[in-house]
Amino acid sequence: MNIPKSKLKRIVIIGAGFAGIELARKIDIQKYQVVLLDRNNYHTFQPLLYQVATAGLEPDSIAYTVRHIFEKESKSGNFFFRVAKINKIDADKNCLFSDIGTLSYDILVIATGSKTNFYGNQNVEKYAMSMKSVPEALDLRSLILHNFEDATVCTNNEIRESLMSIVIVGAGPTGVELAGALAELKNHVLPKDYPELDIRKMNIHLIDATDRVLASMSKEASKNAQKYLEEMGVKLHFGMMVKDYDGNTITTNQQQFCTKTLIWSAGVTGSLLFGIKNESQQRGRYLVDKNNKISGYENIYAIGDIASMNTDKAFPSGHPMVAQVAIQQGLNLAKNLNQENSFNPFVYNDKGSMATIGRNKAVVDLNKFQFKGFLAWFVWMFIHLISLVGFRNKVIALVNWLIQYFSYNRHVRLIIRPY
Amino acid sequence: MNIPKSKLKRIVIIGAGFAGIELARKIDIQKYQVVLLDRNNYHTFQPLLYQVATAGLEPDSIAYTVRHIFEKESKSGNFFFRVAKINKIDADKNCLFSDIGTLSYDILVIATGSKTNFYGNQNVEKYAMSMKSVPEALDLRSLILHNFEDATVCTNNEIRESLMSIVIVGAGPTGVELAGALAELKNHVLPKDYPELDIRKMNIHLIDATDRVLASMSKEASKNAQKYLEEMGVKLHFGMMVKDYDGNTITTNQQQFCTKTLIWSAGVTGSLLFGIKNESQQRGRYLVDKNNKISGYENIYAIGDIASMNTDKAFPSGHPMVAQVAIQQGLNLAKNLNQENSFNPFVYNDKGSMATIGRNKAVVDLNKFQFKGFLAWFVWMFIHLISLVGFRNKVIALVNWLIQYFSYNRHVRLIIRPY
Repeated sequence: MNIPKSKLKRIVIIGAGFAGIELARKIDIQKYQVVLLDRNNYHTFQPLLYQVATAGLEPDSIAYTVRHIFEKESKSGNFFFRVAKINKIDADKNCLFSDIGTLSYDILVIATGSKTNFYGNQNVEKYAMSMKSVPEALDLRSLILHNFEDATVCTNNEIRESLMSIVIVGAGPTGVELAGALAELKNHVLPKDYPELDIRKMNIHLIDATDRVLASMSKEASKNAQKYLEEMGVKLHFGMMVKDYDGNTITTNQQQFCTKTLIWSAGVTGSLLFGIKNESQQRGRYLVDKNNKISGYENIYAIGDIASMNTDKAFPSGHPMVAQVAIQQGLNLAKNLNQENSFNPFVYNDKGSMATIGRNKAVVDLNKFQFKGFLAWFVWMFIHLISLVGFRNKVIALVNWLIQYFSYNRHVRLIIRPY
Repeated sequence: MNIPKSKLKRIVIIGAGFAGIELARKIDIQKYQVVLLDRNNYHTFQPLLYQVATAGLEPDSIAYTVRHIFEKESKSGNFFFRVAKINKIDADKNCLFSDIGTLSYDILVIATGSKTNFYGNQNVEKYAMSMKSVPEALDLRSLILHNFEDATVCTNNEIRESLMSIVIVGAGPTGVELAGALAELKNHVLPKDYPELDIRKMNIHLIDATDRVLASMSKEASKNAQKYLEEMGVKLHFGMMVKDYDGNTITTNQQQFCTKTLIWSAGVTGSLLFGIKNESQQRGRYLVDKNNKISGYENIYAIGDIASMNTDKAFPSGHPMVAQVAIQQGLNLAKNLNQENSFNPFVYNDKGSMATIGRNKAVVDLNKFQFKGFLAWFVWMFIHLISLVGFRNKVIALVNWLIQYFSYNRHVRLIIRPY
């Protein structure tokens, strides 16, 4: 990989998501040579991917090039970034193999995050859309809009409805935010774009196996989010599980749906690597101790979604796979590696959670209290704005949101598909 | 195509470029049923494509969905837009064939614009990049940045230089603006992104067969643009013609260049359709009379780049293939068709031309006088801003340009390739 040898110990971090970026930012590059690897040249702000998929934001305002984030560190000569796909870890020899060559490490940190979990359903995997990356979000945007173009030339009522209808499986934050954003498209944008079509025939279904939306949040938040979604015309289905999908018809344990668009947001699983032994895995994630060291290894750590830490009694099957945990684990590991001799165990500080359903419609859970409506929506927007990486991205996202707020429009509707 | 029958005459417009959009906007939908067709769901502001290719602007701020442009017209029930690829015209039967079905017309207007002209050189066509569409511009951006990523892991000096070097063929406005933007990337952005690389080894060559850049502009403008380019480090080669390219080495009539990136901006030719007889063509464009009616047809017109009008003595081989001509022909044809009985011949009002080379560096030719420098650059920016379609696009482009101006950065550097 053309990384020069150094007197310093080499830390290799795989993955430039929230965990990897935080660790790489906070690690002391006077003490370590740091090599950060990712398959993309950019960091993705995943919580806003659904806005890319629903024509609200350009991909370029929710992603940021890794090299720009680490401009200063790169100058030092102790920090290197490479675009690489990892093929395998050889833990015995302390090295890894990738599409751009091999690399040895003293300390390896796996921060590969998570990928969509289809729970083994191959038909769903083949025909459903997921939304874990910028290209997937762009594909979803193009598919939805392209289906509407097809609907204008379709003369069969049933097929036209199935082109216009969207079924989202999984009513966690991603599913709820997507359903809300699609409902706003339906209510404010699509009727103007397609006066030929009877947009009332566009059905947005949100399916979940549990008995409520946002099951990871408070019951209060679930209740309010559900009310918002129903007001906006989203059809909710609980206790429902998808059995099969052939690209046209979804079969569930209750009823069938005809749709050309099934969005799968029903779960994620760790993005595991070859070469880490099976005993170190648990439910698709790497089992780590309270310092994020992978069980059975001395110099390999896992942080973020890919890590499952069972030592916290509040989270017996590992912490939730969210940005907050990833950032805090990245920071804690950086501190521990920087001081070398004493290790502070990771303690999760849950700052609360939130989801936005539409304009002036959001729900926020803080430790002690919950709130909703305009204030929640404003807080959601503020937190997401300041969390975006880079001044330009913040400004562009803000401008987009302001224009959307006053125009009731979502402008980013280009169909740019596989080219 | 599922277009309802109407008592009104049907005008079918193929192409939503500058000419087609202007015609569709100005045609009287009380008098005609208008059907606008394009292979994309968006209108592309081609003069700024080079900024997409050079990480300056998102594609979504230089493109605009056709449906949004014609929101009001669509509501009337006399205006229809379809995303369609045209296979063939049947002029005898007054109908056309497309991937979404057939369509009959009373009046057909061909506004398909132009495509890159490789002058029959198949190797160049295979390996060179062109820049006539949003996907092509995105591909070019990704290729350039990806080559730099490859350069960081490359240990062979020659190959590394060929990854970092870029050769642009054709020093018209596109080639000059691209070369200038790439020089700014080289001078301000890439050294920070890639401190490992010796960016001085990045060569930007601009090749032209004539003896000056911007041959279509005044000699004054050429001289000034050339001076700017040389100041910025672009290497100019005149009287040079490309003979071959194998993806690594360019062979010309003078010397060879080693590069992984050959950008072809040496010429365009009309995007002809099947079904219009050969006698109606001239140098790859449709020969039209002074009312833009295609020679040999009674109800088929051509406007914009695809039309070659020889009646104007100032332009014996047809007007220049630029936006101004396209817009003015669209407008003139709309007026003529609206009044039906009397036809006003097309008269080109040349408002001048301009090209920007870098920050505070541009050249402007007006009828009577030329100017350059900051004022020209400011005028260029102002004219392009107000020409962008849609309030949001204007604001987003302005914000991007302001941030770039003060930060010396170009932020849109994601590598998003065929997905």
